[in-house]
Amino acid sequence: MVSPSISDGLVDMARLVGSAIGRATTALLDADLQLAESVISADARVDDAQRDLEDRAIAILARQQPVATDLRVVVASLRMSVDLERSGDLAEHVARLARLRFPKFAVPGDLHRKILEMGQLAQRLMAQAAEVIITKDVDAALQLEQDDDRMDELHRMLFPHLMDDRWKHGVETAVDVTLVGRYYERFADHAVSIARRVVYLVTGELTTDASITP
Amino acid sequence: MVSPSISDGLVDMARLVGSAIGRATTALLDADLQLAESVISADARVDDAQRDLEDRAIAILARQQPVATDLRVVVASLRMSVDLERSGDLAEHVARLARLRFPKFAVPGDLHRKILEMGQLAQRLMAQAAEVIITKDVDAALQLEQDDDRMDELHRMLFPHLMDDRWKHGVETAVDVTLVGRYYERFADHAVSIARRVVYLVTGELTTDASITP
Repeated sequence: MVSPSISDGLVDMARLVGSAIGRATTALLDADLQLAESVISADARVDDAQRDLEDRAIAILARQQPVATDLRVVVASLRMSVDLERSGDLAEHVARLARLRFPKFAVPGDLHRKILEMGQLAQRLMAQAAEVIITKDVDAALQLEQDDDRMDELHRMLFPHLMDDRWKHGVETAVDVTLVGRYYERFADHAVSIARRVVYLVTGELTTDASITP
Repeated sequence: MVSPSISDGLVDMARLVGSAIGRATTALLDADLQLAESVISADARVDDAQRDLEDRAIAILARQQPVATDLRVVVASLRMSVDLERSGDLAEHVARLARLRFPKFAVPGDLHRKILEMGQLAQRLMAQAAEVIITKDVDAALQLEQDDDRMDELHRMLFPHLMDDRWKHGVETAVDVTLVGRYYERFADHAVSIARRVVYLVTGELTTDASITP
């Protein structure tokens, strides 16, 4: 056991960013400025946690000089911490969009339900990723990947909506929805990427990135 | 000197992705399907290079057990290789958009010049990042960061254009331009992130992410 503290650090980060995406979604759909601000300012904690984790990893590499699997775990953790930091940024972007459009709603009513589903799914996928880090359960990791297919589907479904002749919310809102859709989809990709790293550590097989959407 | 081969690997990756963003921009602006396809298929080389570099880093950590600065260089290299891999994905996304809209042009004529400037600047910033990796020149790294301000400016300038009442290219094109603008801006952020890591290794001071645009 090279690094329970690193694993704990990753799980803490996953909880922070999972909470952030949930709160950001609420801020976006409710046009809640105060909640948006709280998500934006809380992202500094995620960045701190990432730096802290990197420092701990470096300390472990220097002092314990792990080899074989233990070494791979530390290197994989560094990679996962980058995914988590980036996920935090994406949650912050959602909150920034809510703030930018306040007191207006950035998301029109007829897309409310789809964006809510994307936001909830993003939060759930990150919770699954945290669980996979803890349990190292390969089946749960594969399940996460399947659940991400729904995110890709939701993301794809946004575009015909925006490009429908009956779209009446203008270009600004179409641009907002395009960006927010991409933020959720990328957030989910990071959760998938974390799960794949865990699978790789357990099985030695790295699934390709082919199914991660552009 | 712990890792000339790692540094070479990073520079090779930077060259690959710099070339990819340049070619993707040409494919996008010329609606050149063949060129777009070549960028898309070439991204596998970037992914291979990243895995190869990670394997080399792990081998160095296991065999040489570097400490202090040497250890930080290896860890920073891992982080930079992730930035480069992601930059390659972004170049691929630009090419995929060109392919998606072929034989039409994804970018309308009146935005051609701005997108060309973003594409050229992205390629230049990555070339600067490669140079910074080689020279470890802190001034050049700071210059790169300043040059990235122009990318942020170009990116910001896109939105008023899309939202102008005189915009006559429809929502689909607005969505395309929104995404492509974001791809370039993120690509540039990765170049900045690489330069910052080098500065950190040289000076021990990590500049904040505050000026990296959401």
